[in-house]
Amino acid sequence: MPHLSPPLIQSLRNLLGERLSTSLTLREQHGRGEAHHAAAFPDAVAFAETTSEVSEIVRLCAAEGVPVIAFGAGTSLEGHLTALNGGVSIDLSRMSKIARISIDDLDCTVEAGVTREQLNTYLRDMGLFFPIDPGANASIGGMAATRASGTNAVRYGTMRENVLGLTVVLPTGQIIRTGGRARKSSAGYDLTRLFVGSEGTLGIITEVTLRLYGIPETISAALCSFESVEQTVAAAIQVVQLGIPVARMELMDRGLIRAVNAYSGLDLKIADTLAFEFHGSPAGVQEQVDMVSAIVEEHGGKDFEWANAPEERNRLWKARHNAFYAVVSQRPNAKGWSSDVCVPVSQLSNCILKTRELLQDCSVPAAILGHVGDGNYHVVFAVDPGNAEELGEVAAINKKMVRYALSVGGTSTGEHGVGTGKIAYLREEHGDAVDLMALIKHAVDPAGIMNPGKILPN
Amino acid sequence: MPHLSPPLIQSLRNLLGERLSTSLTLREQHGRGEAHHAAAFPDAVAFAETTSEVSEIVRLCAAEGVPVIAFGAGTSLEGHLTALNGGVSIDLSRMSKIARISIDDLDCTVEAGVTREQLNTYLRDMGLFFPIDPGANASIGGMAATRASGTNAVRYGTMRENVLGLTVVLPTGQIIRTGGRARKSSAGYDLTRLFVGSEGTLGIITEVTLRLYGIPETISAALCSFESVEQTVAAAIQVVQLGIPVARMELMDRGLIRAVNAYSGLDLKIADTLAFEFHGSPAGVQEQVDMVSAIVEEHGGKDFEWANAPEERNRLWKARHNAFYAVVSQRPNAKGWSSDVCVPVSQLSNCILKTRELLQDCSVPAAILGHVGDGNYHVVFAVDPGNAEELGEVAAINKKMVRYALSVGGTSTGEHGVGTGKIAYLREEHGDAVDLMALIKHAVDPAGIMNPGKILPN
Repeated sequence: MPHLSPPLIQSLRNLLGERLSTSLTLREQHGRGEAHHAAAFPDAVAFAETTSEVSEIVRLCAAEGVPVIAFGAGTSLEGHLTALNGGVSIDLSRMSKIARISIDDLDCTVEAGVTREQLNTYLRDMGLFFPIDPGANASIGGMAATRASGTNAVRYGTMRENVLGLTVVLPTGQIIRTGGRARKSSAGYDLTRLFVGSEGTLGIITEVTLRLYGIPETISAALCSFESVEQTVAAAIQVVQLGIPVARMELMDRGLIRAVNAYSGLDLKIADTLAFEFHGSPAGVQEQVDMVSAIVEEHGGKDFEWANAPEERNRLWKARHNAFYAVVSQRPNAKGWSSDVCVPVSQLSNCILKTRELLQDCSVPAAILGHVGDGNYHVVFAVDPGNAEELGEVAAINKKMVRYALSVGGTSTGEHGVGTGKIAYLREEHGDAVDLMALIKHAVDPAGIMNPGKILPN
Repeated sequence: MPHLSPPLIQSLRNLLGERLSTSLTLREQHGRGEAHHAAAFPDAVAFAETTSEVSEIVRLCAAEGVPVIAFGAGTSLEGHLTALNGGVSIDLSRMSKIARISIDDLDCTVEAGVTREQLNTYLRDMGLFFPIDPGANASIGGMAATRASGTNAVRYGTMRENVLGLTVVLPTGQIIRTGGRARKSSAGYDLTRLFVGSEGTLGIITEVTLRLYGIPETISAALCSFESVEQTVAAAIQVVQLGIPVARMELMDRGLIRAVNAYSGLDLKIADTLAFEFHGSPAGVQEQVDMVSAIVEEHGGKDFEWANAPEERNRLWKARHNAFYAVVSQRPNAKGWSSDVCVPVSQLSNCILKTRELLQDCSVPAAILGHVGDGNYHVVFAVDPGNAEELGEVAAINKKMVRYALSVGGTSTGEHGVGTGKIAYLREEHGDAVDLMALIKHAVDPAGIMNPGKILPN
């Protein structure tokens, strides 16, 4: 694929002025996410401020067959941002306007660069919140593009369920709007869901219409310690199977608790732990707490530690959100590698035990954490990205985890996306359906300029 | 497009024997749904019993460019089943096996011809249910293909949220599996959601993997009468805006209650009415009931009539489900025409009042009903399908309803699908995004043999 020609650079500069940069620092920063994947630099970084600018950038690049890669907050974990074929990184972080909020309809429209923390700060005084919470302070556009979810998904769903509509710039530069503001619709192909999770390979999401929720009357959080991972998972599975509507239910193994204590200056008990959050009316929360307490006790869980005041809860969840960084920080100059499988809940115990076996002889720091209410869990490894042997070791463990998850009906990625990191597993997971994905990709982006080499091989 | 050639008929007969029929009665029955749309007969009806038979039928038809139209239970309301270009109606009703149920994972896989009542009868003894309930005893495959929903969607979502995976026969005859059993996944394009709502125009759904739910510990239902539609809708909106998790909240105007009483032998009070259902623990249901009662009272609602015993509830909901037939039966030889708009909840009151104005001088029997918790409502008209003037009158009202719904951010169809009936509004609703739908259709089905003339014009 062609890299940027001087005339194209000039055209982009005419459009964007100083907002088109070819500085090495910016290119390096835009050629990687937060994980271990080796950076691949784009030829230039374009800071777009409007949808029509994005359209114009794409149009100019398309005319020369130059790749374009959308960049939000840079928190990708599967190599989505690597410019494998060079091209232009379109940075959307300046598209950070909250365009519209309807309290009556519990929805809003935001530009793609708005981050989830920015949105929730803005919403708080209205008594509303947006629940999808991948931990990192990702951009809403990036979260839509990777079909992100996180700790609250067990109760509120993922980006799949919470995006009502999108503005998208197609590979031709054409701007379309998908979906709408009605809560449901049967009006034609579900283009919204086609773009949610398409990782910038079919178009660039520039605006997102989201469902919002009222902040629950009562919120209560608790940590609970177990004697073993087995018991921890068994308790979690029972909570799911009884349909108790917990808002969050997070597994943190003892290794993770140790890392989190060190990183966030906490003194949580070093044990395999479930962290819960309950949302509802006072009576509803009490009922959930009673049921969960009984289940936890039955599985040997104890030492319930409550965090009911907002600041205590925030401290707890901030620590949980920093789990990735906590593990990585255990080693100087390390990078994180996060596995990300999701399995039917009945298989969760098997899978996590197998994973523990795989980790027994692992030479790098590693910890297990998971949104166990969904059957989704991760191992975070702290790797030396320059050490091929170590990367090979972790890749082998990751492969075994994925293979096992697929063998029991699970998926190779619950929430991080395919990027470059999971391409190798896509056919194993979806069989010939991958051919249909490729057919759609080719129809929508025949020149292959949209984030090439992600989801589908180059 | 070519109709069936004698050699193709022979090949299909070799494959299916007696299960390939060209009888006029069967062709007529397969060339229409339950609504007013004029039938267009397929050339033959093929009763498939397996996915590989469907694949073989499609392959044979594709070789001659002959259209194929999937047929489930025949309950379509927007002309999906009309064989505008002839071809083969593939009847899936014999594919009625419940292939797999997992109580632990709350999911199941069923063949496309399984009906929702069949599934729920099967599930009842396991303490499980599948909530999506469009009223008619539709097939699960048809419900997936039209992105159906119905009375429970306000609490449990639509087919969009409740289908985990599909088996699909593509226009080439190739069989693919989309999605999987994990509750969430970021592994590639969301082909499941692309086929959900594609109305047989991209492929034929032959198996569906569904989320299931535990039957709630407590279920309680109630009817409540109001003085006016305005008050009825105002109460409903407040219930939504306060986030009370009602399982059902149905508007029935006084005309509908009259029709339902006559059709189902009931003596419900003739008034604009909300019908509620509450699901949860005993305390949770009581809390919902208390909150809803207060709202209802505030809006002048009274005469709460409770239906807590299962048989009373069933009688109530059966009457509601038969609303369509109840309106139609008011006139001998009439057919039903059901409008189907869905709007942001804040616009619901406006829209329903406008609709009432439109109905004031309407010359045919008509009643308003709606899943008002979602902003989705219908007018059912009883029309004489042979009377062009009458059809024109209803079409004009329908057009005004749709246009108004679109002008306030709504959709032309909340749950019935596009079929032939809403094609004219698709571009008005989605603008240039329709071109992308057409591009995808053309890429997946270049010969245009899959249910031609539905969603997109021929």
